[in-house]
Amino acid sequence: MTEDLKMRRTIRKYKNEEIPEGLLNELLETAFRTSTTGNMQLYSVIITRDNDNKQKLAPAHFNQPTVTTAPVVLTFCADFNRFIKWCELRNAKPGYDNFQSFFTAAIDAMIVAQQFCTAAELCGLGICYLGTTTYNAPQIIEVLNLPKYVIPVTTITVGYPEIIPPQVERLPLEANIHYETYKDYTPEDIDRLYYEKESLSENRQFITENNKETLAQVFTDVRYPKANNEHFSEVFLDIIKKQGFKF
Amino acid sequence: MTEDLKMRRTIRKYKNEEIPEGLLNELLETAFRTSTTGNMQLYSVIITRDNDNKQKLAPAHFNQPTVTTAPVVLTFCADFNRFIKWCELRNAKPGYDNFQSFFTAAIDAMIVAQQFCTAAELCGLGICYLGTTTYNAPQIIEVLNLPKYVIPVTTITVGYPEIIPPQVERLPLEANIHYETYKDYTPEDIDRLYYEKESLSENRQFITENNKETLAQVFTDVRYPKANNEHFSEVFLDIIKKQGFKF
Repeated sequence: MTEDLKMRRTIRKYKNEEIPEGLLNELLETAFRTSTTGNMQLYSVIITRDNDNKQKLAPAHFNQPTVTTAPVVLTFCADFNRFIKWCELRNAKPGYDNFQSFFTAAIDAMIVAQQFCTAAELCGLGICYLGTTTYNAPQIIEVLNLPKYVIPVTTITVGYPEIIPPQVERLPLEANIHYETYKDYTPEDIDRLYYEKESLSENRQFITENNKETLAQVFTDVRYPKANNEHFSEVFLDIIKKQGFKF
Repeated sequence: MTEDLKMRRTIRKYKNEEIPEGLLNELLETAFRTSTTGNMQLYSVIITRDNDNKQKLAPAHFNQPTVTTAPVVLTFCADFNRFIKWCELRNAKPGYDNFQSFFTAAIDAMIVAQQFCTAAELCGLGICYLGTTTYNAPQIIEVLNLPKYVIPVTTITVGYPEIIPPQVERLPLEANIHYETYKDYTPEDIDRLYYEKESLSENRQFITENNKETLAQVFTDVRYPKANNEHFSEVFLDIIKKQGFKF
């Protein structure tokens, strides 16, 4: 049964076919059965089906076509708003306006997001994560009208696969596991663990296309450069605080 | 196939039975097939099987018995160390010593953790998440010898179920989903959404046992009080910075 999980791949192109509301609700209900901190369910999912709203969300995701072409876009949010409202209505003094509480809710939201993806994939749907969510959280908050104590942490596009691409590579298992304690990587380890990745023709082409010397430079200079990371760190930290988590 | 996901529950008591290394590796390899930011695989999993090491980890998890009685304890870490080492060896200047990069790696680690859980459950194993990981990250870093740019974000205990408890309640689906934009909760919404949870005899007993007036007070005064959250916020922020992510 785990064979399906092992063979999965990200799907960015979808058929022009709606996802029935009953199925979507079933998948969400299934996802909400995952573990959650203290059974507090510190998350909310915003369901976008409306084309105008997809258009409004698109710029926050750097206009990746998957946002406007997927039948459903789901924004998973760390949400302490509902829980805090419950506390206040029950004569209980909430103390959740801090970083640890934000991070706990973010973990809850990520667990649910991933379980939704797996449930969807087991039903023949395809998904794509949008890492842009934490870059442009302020715009997403505005478009989705997210109140205090609610932060978007990831977005998923979902639909029936139009094209099923080949699986992309992964590092060998030993690259990501450590027995008992962390054994740091020697230069020889790095060479060995990245050898296959660096040998792939598509990755070599990627270097040429970007006029770089090494694959790593494509990441540091083009895809995830320092200046961007630092800019989006400030933006994200700022909005977490503005939404009510003080630190 | 999603019926198994829907019927899942957390397992805290395990049989005295090892998990074969081949199966564990297979489950990890399956989990590593989940989405990861830019295919960077910004995570590491520390596998604890040794009893002495479980004993050393236990205090960081407030001595929850599941840590020392599970055959396997897995600590999932946000890991930019390996990627940064790769960049440095490839004449590329990494710019990943910031909050956004830490958070990206944390998301990667959470996605993988949840997929591991699902794969394990589909193979008849049971899991329990330990939310204590972000509280006592400094001790965990010391015990597991985690280098700069590596932060533990969650821990999972795994084993063959000894006792399968009943499923615990969840809020009704409508509590956690919003159509197109966020509709904030009125007091009447909160009353309706929490009605079933508050009516359950085990939750009413929970109030009595803790000498409280409401279930919410058990959370705010006993389980997750403000002073603890604020203390562990400072500890966690401090260690994230000490491990090299500047903000």
